[in-house]
Amino acid sequence: MVPFDYPARLRRARELMTARGVDALLLSVGADLPYFTGYRAMPLERLTMLVLPVDAPATLVLPAFEAPRVTPLPGVFSLEPWEETDDPLSLVAGLCRSARRLGVGDTTWSVFLLGLQSSLAGAEFSAASALVGELRRRKDAGEADLLRQAGAAADRVVARLDHTRFAGKTERELAAEIAAMVVAEGHESAAFSIVASGPNGASPHHEAGSRVISPGDAVVVDFGGRLHGYHSDITRTFFVGDPPARVRKVHAVVAAAQEAGVAASGPGVPAQEVDRAARRVIAAAGFGSHFTHRTGHGIGLEEHEAPYLVEGNAVPLEPGMAFSVEPGVYLPGEFGVRLEDIVLVTGGGVERLNGAPRHLHSVD
Amino acid sequence: MVPFDYPARLRRARELMTARGVDALLLSVGADLPYFTGYRAMPLERLTMLVLPVDAPATLVLPAFEAPRVTPLPGVFSLEPWEETDDPLSLVAGLCRSARRLGVGDTTWSVFLLGLQSSLAGAEFSAASALVGELRRRKDAGEADLLRQAGAAADRVVARLDHTRFAGKTERELAAEIAAMVVAEGHESAAFSIVASGPNGASPHHEAGSRVISPGDAVVVDFGGRLHGYHSDITRTFFVGDPPARVRKVHAVVAAAQEAGVAASGPGVPAQEVDRAARRVIAAAGFGSHFTHRTGHGIGLEEHEAPYLVEGNAVPLEPGMAFSVEPGVYLPGEFGVRLEDIVLVTGGGVERLNGAPRHLHSVD
Repeated sequence: MVPFDYPARLRRARELMTARGVDALLLSVGADLPYFTGYRAMPLERLTMLVLPVDAPATLVLPAFEAPRVTPLPGVFSLEPWEETDDPLSLVAGLCRSARRLGVGDTTWSVFLLGLQSSLAGAEFSAASALVGELRRRKDAGEADLLRQAGAAADRVVARLDHTRFAGKTERELAAEIAAMVVAEGHESAAFSIVASGPNGASPHHEAGSRVISPGDAVVVDFGGRLHGYHSDITRTFFVGDPPARVRKVHAVVAAAQEAGVAASGPGVPAQEVDRAARRVIAAAGFGSHFTHRTGHGIGLEEHEAPYLVEGNAVPLEPGMAFSVEPGVYLPGEFGVRLEDIVLVTGGGVERLNGAPRHLHSVD
Repeated sequence: MVPFDYPARLRRARELMTARGVDALLLSVGADLPYFTGYRAMPLERLTMLVLPVDAPATLVLPAFEAPRVTPLPGVFSLEPWEETDDPLSLVAGLCRSARRLGVGDTTWSVFLLGLQSSLAGAEFSAASALVGELRRRKDAGEADLLRQAGAAADRVVARLDHTRFAGKTERELAAEIAAMVVAEGHESAAFSIVASGPNGASPHHEAGSRVISPGDAVVVDFGGRLHGYHSDITRTFFVGDPPARVRKVHAVVAAAQEAGVAASGPGVPAQEVDRAARRVIAAAGFGSHFTHRTGHGIGLEEHEAPYLVEGNAVPLEPGMAFSVEPGVYLPGEFGVRLEDIVLVTGGGVERLNGAPRHLHSVD
């Protein structure tokens, strides 16, 4: 693991907490916990929660038998393991008796928040992302390097797909092959793989299913994995055989839109301008109503995180922000095309973290 | 997909809501949503939420571009798609303006609950599981059949592992192979694969890592997948080469404990008695302090759900409940052994849903 400077992160969090009058943060499943401790909890029913008071060392409350998975940092955070017959919520509540304003991790399960609200009846709860998000959205050099490595690993999977037979496989079989390649190329785990063939490609979040891929299909392939905690996310569109003019034309429009989105990205640019730049190209080509989602999302310890590249989000891009640029065109009953790369905002523009060829990939 | 009787499930939920004075349920990511609609939402930042009022048809609020993934059921639930620039929380709040008492799905993200609490300031929120859990914990014939199919698919993966080379692979590589086998044997997706070799086996939830498996290692292999929404979960312990007496002895103790747990299970038995039966065997053999977790968990649309087989849970088992029986012994610095099957409570006892041989599996 990269030795991130967790004490510095906690210090910056406490500075923000002081400024905003937040007495403690309660961070559970999801990305906040690894951001501050290096430990990612299993998203299961046994409570894991970091209690981070503004004025005292942090405590990680976790199932005793999962404690071997974590290395505490003396003076930074200690472990408070609970046994199977203990009540972990009362442990957490006991650690924040004097707190009046509590920030709760966005992805914390509601059943735990409800329990804490009931046992800490006088406290006021708000979303921790308002505070933690400000830190997490700017990646430091170590984080950028892991995103770079994850991007390169995803590129290698695309290279393998160019030599993979598509025809005759179900979407689900190909998705499983991709997941294995994602791990083989250096991710610690596969996060997801969308394989949307033929008319299924018109559903942007299609779930790989039992449809058998056939010659003449366009296939949207969107996958990612996690590498030392940081995610990759890439989309390329494949065609089984020689693509006809209509698919080539739509692909060229999407590729131009993606290029425009990347070109528009850079420090100081409002996030929504990236969306506008990509959308303008697609609209000008007459497919505006078929680009049905935002242009991108931030990426890091989560697959999707701030900043979101969407109309209405005027937050200015800053060096260190990493996000996807992924326009698409979805033609119901026909096919879909999407093209996605991750970019990292630099001092002068962006660095692309994916280099896999951006053409329409022809496969067997 | 199995055509579950969703209208009947909604009717039973409304009967309980009426009895308990709950005005509406708000169900998001996790298993409640597929239980009532057949649709499982992606666990991402775009809100998907079923608003289920006690006295009106249900509405599924979801991202517009994910709407093609769902088939609404006329008269049962309709779709309310939101566009990328809409505020989905205000849509949900608008649908429950008149509700005073709201039940929120346990795994709903806290950021959404906090938003709803703020816009529906007069309402009282509680955990939906108090109500929905009562329905979900008893599987009907269709659910039992899918759990049976998932168990058989997991058994086939174990059979393949008997002929798989372990030595020389990293835990992570073997875990990825297992995930691919889980899909190849009929699951729609792999849920997890724990591969804990040598001393790593002493950590029950060890995350498969870079350790290279070697001759002389005991290897705890615990994996599962999802089949038409329902989960498998099985653990077998392997040994690379010929196991020495100590490993064989510990394995025999765990196998006897597992058998005792299964034998103790049946209708009317308090859940904790299953735990006690398994624990007694391990304690009698002198390893009591090394069995550090509960004996099992319910399984269904979630990997882990009620009932939990743990000291302190006196809920009586009922026909239709499905759960794991998975005692283990964990010897720090040495190795671990765990053995897990899923059982289904019947009218007279339990049916085992896994038939893979329960011996210590010797591999190369």
